[in-house]
Amino acid sequence: MTTITGVDVHDVRFPTAAAGDGSDSINRGDYSATYVELTTDAGVTGTGFTFTNGQGNEITCAAVRALAPSLVGVSLSADPLAFLRSLTAHPQLRWIGPEKGALHMATGAVVNAVWDARAKLAGRPMWEYLASMSTSDLLACVDFRHISDALTPSEAAAILDRGLVGLDDRLARLRDEGFPSYTTSVGWLGYPDDKVRALTKQAYADGWRAMKMKVGGPIEDDVRRAAIIRSEIGPDALLMMDANQIWGVDEAIANMARLAEFDPYWIEEPTHPDDILGHAKIQEAVSPVRVATGEVAANRVIFKQLLQADAIRVMQVDACRVAGVPEVLAELLLAAKFGVPVCPHAGGVGLCELVQHIAIFDYLRVGTSLDGRMVEYVDHLHEHFTDPVRTREGRYLLPSRPGYSSDMVPASIDRFSFPGGPEWN
Amino acid sequence: MTTITGVDVHDVRFPTAAAGDGSDSINRGDYSATYVELTTDAGVTGTGFTFTNGQGNEITCAAVRALAPSLVGVSLSADPLAFLRSLTAHPQLRWIGPEKGALHMATGAVVNAVWDARAKLAGRPMWEYLASMSTSDLLACVDFRHISDALTPSEAAAILDRGLVGLDDRLARLRDEGFPSYTTSVGWLGYPDDKVRALTKQAYADGWRAMKMKVGGPIEDDVRRAAIIRSEIGPDALLMMDANQIWGVDEAIANMARLAEFDPYWIEEPTHPDDILGHAKIQEAVSPVRVATGEVAANRVIFKQLLQADAIRVMQVDACRVAGVPEVLAELLLAAKFGVPVCPHAGGVGLCELVQHIAIFDYLRVGTSLDGRMVEYVDHLHEHFTDPVRTREGRYLLPSRPGYSSDMVPASIDRFSFPGGPEWN
Repeated sequence: MTTITGVDVHDVRFPTAAAGDGSDSINRGDYSATYVELTTDAGVTGTGFTFTNGQGNEITCAAVRALAPSLVGVSLSADPLAFLRSLTAHPQLRWIGPEKGALHMATGAVVNAVWDARAKLAGRPMWEYLASMSTSDLLACVDFRHISDALTPSEAAAILDRGLVGLDDRLARLRDEGFPSYTTSVGWLGYPDDKVRALTKQAYADGWRAMKMKVGGPIEDDVRRAAIIRSEIGPDALLMMDANQIWGVDEAIANMARLAEFDPYWIEEPTHPDDILGHAKIQEAVSPVRVATGEVAANRVIFKQLLQADAIRVMQVDACRVAGVPEVLAELLLAAKFGVPVCPHAGGVGLCELVQHIAIFDYLRVGTSLDGRMVEYVDHLHEHFTDPVRTREGRYLLPSRPGYSSDMVPASIDRFSFPGGPEWN
Repeated sequence: MTTITGVDVHDVRFPTAAAGDGSDSINRGDYSATYVELTTDAGVTGTGFTFTNGQGNEITCAAVRALAPSLVGVSLSADPLAFLRSLTAHPQLRWIGPEKGALHMATGAVVNAVWDARAKLAGRPMWEYLASMSTSDLLACVDFRHISDALTPSEAAAILDRGLVGLDDRLARLRDEGFPSYTTSVGWLGYPDDKVRALTKQAYADGWRAMKMKVGGPIEDDVRRAAIIRSEIGPDALLMMDANQIWGVDEAIANMARLAEFDPYWIEEPTHPDDILGHAKIQEAVSPVRVATGEVAANRVIFKQLLQADAIRVMQVDACRVAGVPEVLAELLLAAKFGVPVCPHAGGVGLCELVQHIAIFDYLRVGTSLDGRMVEYVDHLHEHFTDPVRTREGRYLLPSRPGYSSDMVPASIDRFSFPGGPEWN
């Protein structure tokens, strides 16, 4: 029995804003991590983080400190649902969520650190650790409160049991081919046209056949940039568009009518992330273009409704905005129930490292299909992780080291710590 | 032209948890305020706060500090929408919301402090300050992005213009009668049965004809407590029930079937606050009992959908969970458009002081009816405010001092400051 003995949190910020990397219609910041280290009496350190955009990272760090008393002294083999609710339904802290915003993001960081420690103790990469769990052990982690009207435990059990059939074949396929992905590195709003063209050419040459561009600037600019990218990638490669929530509902519909000539594969975050009904209206209007969202969807209750309302046809769960592995599991199960493919959100700091495990586990045990599945890939900041993602011709290769690939390089933590690290001093 | 010169924030906590005051099926805490003081070069200090439940108040305080650089040097007469978006659409901070959780609550505190300063400079209580503004000045404060599919600026203008007709008569009526309210002080879950009975008797004797009880414990306990209260107040007084989000959707429907015999006027927070579709399903099932929610509804996009989906028949907007006066104004206008009465959430620390202004303004200028309108009243902690609410026979009397009634007594701030104040030392 292993017990959590301490919680450390680091405010780590990378100065990305100046270069325009990560810039879109809403966000322009310094990619940052609220980085958590859980020490245990077994000597293993569990790590987890939530991604933020620079300013405000001190707020999520404060939220981790507020959660710490609920962690220290807890056994890693404690009842997983009771442990999860001690954080998500904390009788005082819950008020400043509930299950959303800074507090919930911090919850994601610490819950993932617990799961990282578990996988390390088991000596397995997270995807393999999860895929090898029994159906009942997996279900014991899921909080069905507030989602059981859409997915019952017995339906979830059936999905996970079915996932055992053919698992070895699917794993062999992944070992052979890697996991499909797409790149977001070509079309940030902060990039001038010639940089977009050059990056698109390069990505295509590197084997990428699915690329995402940011939209949501003046519509004429969006049209011009879409034309550049489509002309470089030809008619067969996929072009995804991402509005980062800037549009109103009717505006999204009107703008997508303008952009339809470039054959978008999906429109991501067309409007406010809380607007279930708005997404449903947009999905109906832009079909067969898919509506995709999820990177800032607060929790499983939002995802439940997006699926119930046929508001999305691609689910872009984030690994650490929600309450870590167990809430992601709930969301994968919901997606499987409704037949919607999961294409996890990545980029940021370390998100690619996390979500590769989610996508692989989803294919092996939950969704069991690669049809329409792609993991986002952004070529930033991987050098700061001890087990960085590896890609080959636009596909992720299977991670093999124990844990959730979330360990940051100690020298990077020191250098980029805010405000005291040498990078910021 | 008056400019903001400084931002102070105080972590103020009152030790209410021990007494069971404020206890319900989800929350048990120490009622607290993230209390903001904005100094100005006109000598006026604007105050605002957000209410929290104890632990976590340091997180919302950290969020106020993160917002402070966007406030200092800003003119109180700056373009109100641009100012609001500088906070709600901050290019870095927005990521840890957006428009929800700790950051948005802190935004509510600082925005209300700005409006408090404006009303003080105008020498008017907030309700009067707002009611006297022109339609165009009011509309200039509202962010219609993400709600204009449900409420256009011209529809909002028509509502506010209509609100000018008969305004003097409505004001005369309020001066004469006060504003209707109901009490929540009788039925906290932490209270034993005999205390519930005694408090109910006393409240009825004091003139209250609308009372709210907490539900969401074991259903047999809820039934027993409901029977006690109904037997004390007779068949004509209103009995509201509040589940504080604990139920799943189907569970809420089943439990309300059990509680129907006590003729509930509304069921408040029957399930998760993000669950628009769930509330709609519950509303359809429990009708004619009204579904009510709003105290933790994150923003105007959530309220918009609750109205679009006919998911609530009572809107319980909170004064400082959303982004202060301008977002509340958006929500009042949405409610008026959809014909749903607003019964603001109060209690906590200072919420009664704030929402009386909202309800009065709503009656005078937006909703223009008292039908089904009641302000929550909880008899806690008013002594810590310099302009506390006054009630007479279950009705709020009109506040008359300039500002938003949000100034806390300096000695209370000192005594209850956490962790350094004498109460906590």
